Amino acid sequence: MSQHPPRRQPPPLAAVGPVRLTPAASTALRPAPVASVRGGFWGRRREANARVGIPQGPDLLEAAGNLHDLRLAAGTATGAYQGDYPFMDSDVYKWLEAASWQLAQAERAGEGDGAAAKQLGEDVDRIIGLVAEAQRPDGYLNTWFQVTKDGRAYQDLRWGHELYCAGHLIQAAVAHHRATGREELLRVAVLFADNIDSVFGPDKPIDGFDAHPEVETALVELFRETGERRYLRLALHFVDRHGHGVFGRETYCQDRVPLREAENVEGHAVRQLYLLAAAADLAAETGEAALREACARLWEAMVATKTHLTGGLGAHHDKEEFGDPFELPNERAYCETCAAVASVQWGWRMALLTGEARYSDLIERTLYNGLLAGVSLDGERWLYVNPLQVRDGHIYTGDDKSARRTRWFRCACCPPNVMRLLAGLEHYMATTDDEGVQLHQYATGTYGGERAGEALVVSVNTPYPYQGRITVTVDESPADLPWTLSLRIPRWSARTAVRVDGQAAGETARDGWLRLHRCWTPGTEVVVDLDVTPRLTAADPRVDAVRGSVAIERGPLVYCLEQADHPGGGLDDIVIDTSVPLTEQNRPDLLGGVVTVRASGRRRDVPDTADWWPYRDVTAGPDATADRSGRAPGGSASLALTAVPYHAWANRADGAMRVWLPTT
Amino acid sequence: MSQHPPRRQPPPLAAVGPVRLTPAASTALRPAPVASVRGGFWGRRREANARVGIPQGPDLLEAAGNLHDLRLAAGTATGAYQGDYPFMDSDVYKWLEAASWQLAQAERAGEGDGAAAKQLGEDVDRIIGLVAEAQRPDGYLNTWFQVTKDGRAYQDLRWGHELYCAGHLIQAAVAHHRATGREELLRVAVLFADNIDSVFGPDKPIDGFDAHPEVETALVELFRETGERRYLRLALHFVDRHGHGVFGRETYCQDRVPLREAENVEGHAVRQLYLLAAAADLAAETGEAALREACARLWEAMVATKTHLTGGLGAHHDKEEFGDPFELPNERAYCETCAAVASVQWGWRMALLTGEARYSDLIERTLYNGLLAGVSLDGERWLYVNPLQVRDGHIYTGDDKSARRTRWFRCACCPPNVMRLLAGLEHYMATTDDEGVQLHQYATGTYGGERAGEALVVSVNTPYPYQGRITVTVDESPADLPWTLSLRIPRWSARTAVRVDGQAAGETARDGWLRLHRCWTPGTEVVVDLDVTPRLTAADPRVDAVRGSVAIERGPLVYCLEQADHPGGGLDDIVIDTSVPLTEQNRPDLLGGVVTVRASGRRRDVPDTADWWPYRDVTAGPDATADRSGRAPGGSASLALTAVPYHAWANRADGAMRVWLPTT
Repeated sequence: MSQHPPRRQPPPLAAVGPVRLTPAASTALRPAPVASVRGGFWGRRREANARVGIPQGPDLLEAAGNLHDLRLAAGTATGAYQGDYPFMDSDVYKWLEAASWQLAQAERAGEGDGAAAKQLGEDVDRIIGLVAEAQRPDGYLNTWFQVTKDGRAYQDLRWGHELYCAGHLIQAAVAHHRATGREELLRVAVLFADNIDSVFGPDKPIDGFDAHPEVETALVELFRETGERRYLRLALHFVDRHGHGVFGRETYCQDRVPLREAENVEGHAVRQLYLLAAAADLAAETGEAALREACARLWEAMVATKTHLTGGLGAHHDKEEFGDPFELPNERAYCETCAAVASVQWGWRMALLTGEARYSDLIERTLYNGLLAGVSLDGERWLYVNPLQVRDGHIYTGDDKSARRTRWFRCACCPPNVMRLLAGLEHYMATTDDEGVQLHQYATGTYGGERAGEALVVSVNTPYPYQGRITVTVDESPADLPWTLSLRIPRWSARTAVRVDGQAAGETARDGWLRLHRCWTPGTEVVVDLDVTPRLTAADPRVDAVRGSVAIERGPLVYCLEQADHPGGGLDDIVIDTSVPLTEQNRPDLLGGVVTVRASGRRRDVPDTADWWPYRDVTAGPDATADRSGRAPGGSASLALTAVPYHAWANRADGAMRVWLPTT
Repeated sequence: MSQHPPRRQPPPLAAVGPVRLTPAASTALRPAPVASVRGGFWGRRREANARVGIPQGPDLLEAAGNLHDLRLAAGTATGAYQGDYPFMDSDVYKWLEAASWQLAQAERAGEGDGAAAKQLGEDVDRIIGLVAEAQRPDGYLNTWFQVTKDGRAYQDLRWGHELYCAGHLIQAAVAHHRATGREELLRVAVLFADNIDSVFGPDKPIDGFDAHPEVETALVELFRETGERRYLRLALHFVDRHGHGVFGRETYCQDRVPLREAENVEGHAVRQLYLLAAAADLAAETGEAALREACARLWEAMVATKTHLTGGLGAHHDKEEFGDPFELPNERAYCETCAAVASVQWGWRMALLTGEARYSDLIERTLYNGLLAGVSLDGERWLYVNPLQVRDGHIYTGDDKSARRTRWFRCACCPPNVMRLLAGLEHYMATTDDEGVQLHQYATGTYGGERAGEALVVSVNTPYPYQGRITVTVDESPADLPWTLSLRIPRWSARTAVRVDGQAAGETARDGWLRLHRCWTPGTEVVVDLDVTPRLTAADPRVDAVRGSVAIERGPLVYCLEQADHPGGGLDDIVIDTSVPLTEQNRPDLLGGVVTVRASGRRRDVPDTADWWPYRDVTAGPDATADRSGRAPGGSASLALTAVPYHAWANRADGAMRVWLPTT
C-alpha cells in the first residue's frame, strides 16, 4: 500500500463476491479486489435490502414451510411437506447467500459487531444448522425427494430441480466461506457435490443433466473455491450434454441444440441465462474459444432481438420462455425478475472475459430498470414479472404473476435472488487488469486494486443516476507508476465531458471505454459529466409491439406513466406530442426522491363504445370512415404527462402503467 | 306443403341441430326447420370433414387411448390408463356428436344407405356400446376417475372435468337422438344427468359446480329433448353459483364475479363462452331479463375490446384466458379453435334470442376465419391455437400449441369440436319467425320453414365468399300469403344491391337486415350483390399491437401474407404501400381454389445486425440517428405482395405469416 496520508476513510477491506477467477483464468479483466458501495442511489436501495428485505427472510421461510421441510428431512419435525414445488430448498440457499454477502458488507462498513449483524449472523448459523441436519449421510440433500418421494434421488431430472437446488446450495456455501471464512456450509456443499459427481458424468450411472441449469456455474465456482478440478470437469460435462435429446430436444429444457451451435437464446429464459453464465465461466477457466464465441454470439443476438427496453428478458408467460426475434410485447412481457438477475450474472462474466464495455452497458440498464422494479422501494414487496404496460381495466389475478407487489410468492425464486444481488452489488462495479482500474458502474463508494504490490484506489461520489456528474477521486496510487483509469461511457450519453483537475481529458473510444493513462497523484479529481438530458427512444421497426410509439429515458433510467399521476382518465387513450420538448422536475417528495420527466400529450378521441366492432375500413385513407361506424379520429386539449422512473412503479395504488407512448 | 311442381330436388328433410327451442321459449327467432348446405365453399370443406375428418376419428381415438380407457372402466380390458387428462372421454363424445350430425346430413342427402354412412353408423353403434358398458350402475361415468381414482366421484371439481365430460355426453346423446331417433346414448346421458342432479344443487350433498362449464348448456338441451324441468333448474343453479367464491373467485374458474354483474368477458375463454351459451339458453327458456341483458352486455364488451380481427378469442397462452381490454397480440394470440366454436354456439343463441343481425355478422367472421383456420384444407390436420402472426425465425415447439398443423393433440379438444360444428353447419344458416324466413349466412343450399301450415322454402346458389353474388330462388311459398324474406347484409359490404326478378328492391335497415315483404311466387329470384372489393382495415387505436398497421380483407375473409408467396426474404421487414390500390386474382390452382389479393409494398432497410442495441434516440425526430448506431430509415424497391385467405394458411411449408401489415 502507498504511504500517502488517507484523505477520507481508511481503505475498505478486500471485497468478496460471487466470481473469484483462478490465477490461470484467461479473462481480460478481474473483479476489483477493493470495492465498497456507500450512500447514494444504491446505498438507499441496499439499505432497504439490509434493513427490511434480508431480515424478513427467516420469518418468511418459516411461514412458507421451507425451514419446516428441512426439519422434516432431518427427522426433527413431523407433519406434512409444505410448499408446492420440489425446489423449496433453493429459496433457503439464496437467502443464505444474500445474508452472507450482507455480513461481509457489514464487516467492511465496520458494523460487523452491531446488533443487526449479530442477529443476522445468528439466523445464518441457525439455518445452516438446519441445512446440515437435513443432509443425508451420502451427501444428497433435497427435502422434497427425501420427504415425499422416499428419497428416490435423481429419478426426475426434468422436474426434480435437485441439481438446481444443489447449485444454489453451492453458491450460498461459497458466499458464506468467502464472507466469513467459515466452512460449515461449504462442507455440506462439497459433500453434495461429491455425491453428484459420483452419479453423473462420463462412465457414471446417470447420463443426463438437470433440466433447470444452475449447478453448472456453481460447480465452476466451487472449483475456484476449493481447487478441485473434478467440479470443473463435471460442469463442462453438464453444459456439453445439452442439446442432444436427453429431454426430447425441448427448448424449455435447453435441449434443442448444443450451445456451441445455437444462433440465438431460446426456451426458458432463466434456464438459458444460468446455462450461459456457466458457459462463460468455463470459457474463462478452460480458455475454450468455441464456448467464448458462442457466448458472444448469443449475447449479441439476444440483445439485438429479444431484449426489452428495461433489460427485461423472456417474452412469454407460458413456459417462461424467450419469444421469437423482435417479439417483445408490453403488457404480457414476462421479464421475470430472476431473468434480470441471471442476465447481470452472465453479463458480468462476459465483461470479465472480454473486457468489452457493452456488457456493462446492459448490466446498468438491467440493474436500474428490469431488475430493480422487482423490489418495492421499501424492500418489502416483490414483483415476479415485470410488464412494460398495465392496461386500463386490468384484472389483478392475485397469483405470483400479478402486476401487484406481493410479500412472498408460492414460487418464491425471485425475492431472495434480488436480495443476494443487491447484497453483493459492489462486485459488479469495477475491475482491474494489468493496466489499471476500470469503473463499470457509477455508484458512490470506493474501488480499486493493486499493481506491482501498490494500491490503486479511487473513490466515487455522485448523485447519479438522477444527475450526470460523477466525481472520481484518486485515493491511493504509486507516485511514479503510470496506470490507466478506464471509465465506461454509457451508450446513451450524447455529449460526455471528462476533466482531470479541471482540464478536459480523454476521448471515448468506439468500444465505449474512456481511458485515462497517466501517473496519478492521490487527491486528483476526475469529473465526468454524462448527458442525462431526457430523451425519446424508438425501437427497431421489427418490434411490432411498439410501432408508432416512443419511450422516455433519462440517463440509464427508463421512465413510465402511471395512473397515479394522471387522474381524470386512463392511460390507454393518451398520445404524446413529440414536438414539445421534454422537461424535468426534481421531486424529493415523490417515490423516495426522483426526477420526473414532463411531456405534453393529449387524450385521443376513442371510438364510441356503443359501436361494437373495433375495426374500420381505411381503404380510402387513414381517416376514412367508410364503414357504418361513423367514427372519426381527433383529439382533445393538451395534457401534461408526468413520467416516473420505471423501477419505482407500482409503489402507489393499483392502476395503469405504460412505458411506450403512442405518438399518433 | 304447397303444391307447385318442384323446380329442383324434392324439399330436404327437416333439419336437426344442436338447439331445439321449446314452444314456450321467448326468442325472436327459431332455427329454420328446413336447412341443407350443398356444394359451394362450405360444401367442399364439409366434404373434407365427411370424407377425412370424421371417418379418421375412431382410429385416432383408439390410438390415443380414449376407447381403451372406456374398456378399462367397463372392465373389458386391462392395462394402464392412457392419456394425460381427466377429460379424455369428452373427445369421444364430441366425435359421437359430429358423427350423428353427419349421419343426419347423409340421410338428408339421400346417402343414408351408402357405404360411407353405413360404416359411420357401425362405428357410432360400436362406440356408443363402449360408452354404455363403461357407465356405472348409478349413472356416473368418467373413465379417469373410475380407473385411476378408485371411482371417487366429484372430489375435484376444479380439475376433474366430470361435469364437463357429462355435458359433452349429453350433447352427443341429444344429437344422436335427433339424428337417428334412437335412444341408446340418450339413456346413458339421462342416467348420468340424474346422478348429477341427485348430488348437486340446493339441498343436495354438493354445493359447487364444475370449474369448466359445459354441462349447463347441455342440461338445457336435455330439458328441451326430454321435457324434464329438473335439468333446466340444475343448469340455472350451476350458472347462479358462479362468482361466489367456490373456487376462490379465480377468473380461470369463472368465479370472480356473478355473471349477471360482470362487465366484460374474462378468464379462460372457452369456459366463459360455454357458460354464456348456457346463460343465453336459460334466458330463452326462462325469459329472465337480467340474464339476457348480461349476455348482450358481455357480448358487446367482448367484441368491442377483446376480439381479434379473425373472430378469434382469448389473448393469453397462459391459462388460455382473455386478456385485458384491447390486449390483442398477434404472434401470441391464443385464439383457441374451441373458443371459435364456442363463440359460434353462444352467438347463435344470442341471434335466436334477440333477432339481431350483428350476432350472425360475428358468426360469419368466425366461421370463415378464426374457426376454419383450425382445420387443414384436406380435413386431416389441426391447429389448436390460431395466431395472427408467425415471425421470421419462429421456433416450432412440436407441442399442441404449435403453429404447425398436427394430426391429433395430447389435449384433443379442438379437432372433434370442429368436426361437430362443420357436420351440423346448416343449423346456423337460417331462421324463421312469424313473419317469414331469415338468411343469416349465404351458403349454397336450401332453407326454410312454414307459416300457417304452408312451406316457405328458398334455395341459395352462390360462389360466395369469393364472389359477392348470391342468388336466392323461392322454391315454395303459399300463393296469397305475404311473408318477409330477410337477408343479413354484412357490415363490411360498402355497396349492396338487391334485385327481385331484376328490379331493385329493399334497403338495409340500421340493424343490418334487409327485409323483403311481399307475396312470393315459386321461381322468383332474389339477387344480392355484396361488395367484396378488397379493403384495408385498421383497428381501434387502443389496440397497441397493430398500431400503424392495416389488414387486408375481402368480403368476410381476412387475408394474410405467407412466406411461401414471398421468396427472397422474410415477412418481418415488409411494409405495405396503402396508396397503391389492391387488386385481386382468381387462383383456382392455389390452396384448393382461392382469390388472392395483390398489394404493393417494399422491404424496409433494417438496422445493421452488428449494432447490438435495437433502440435508438429519436428526440430530434423520427429519423434522428443521434445515438452511435448510425442507422437511418429507408426502403428498397417496390415489392409485389400476395395475400391469401387466413383460413388457408399453414397448408404449405412452415414459414412466416402475418395478418397485420405495417404501413410505415
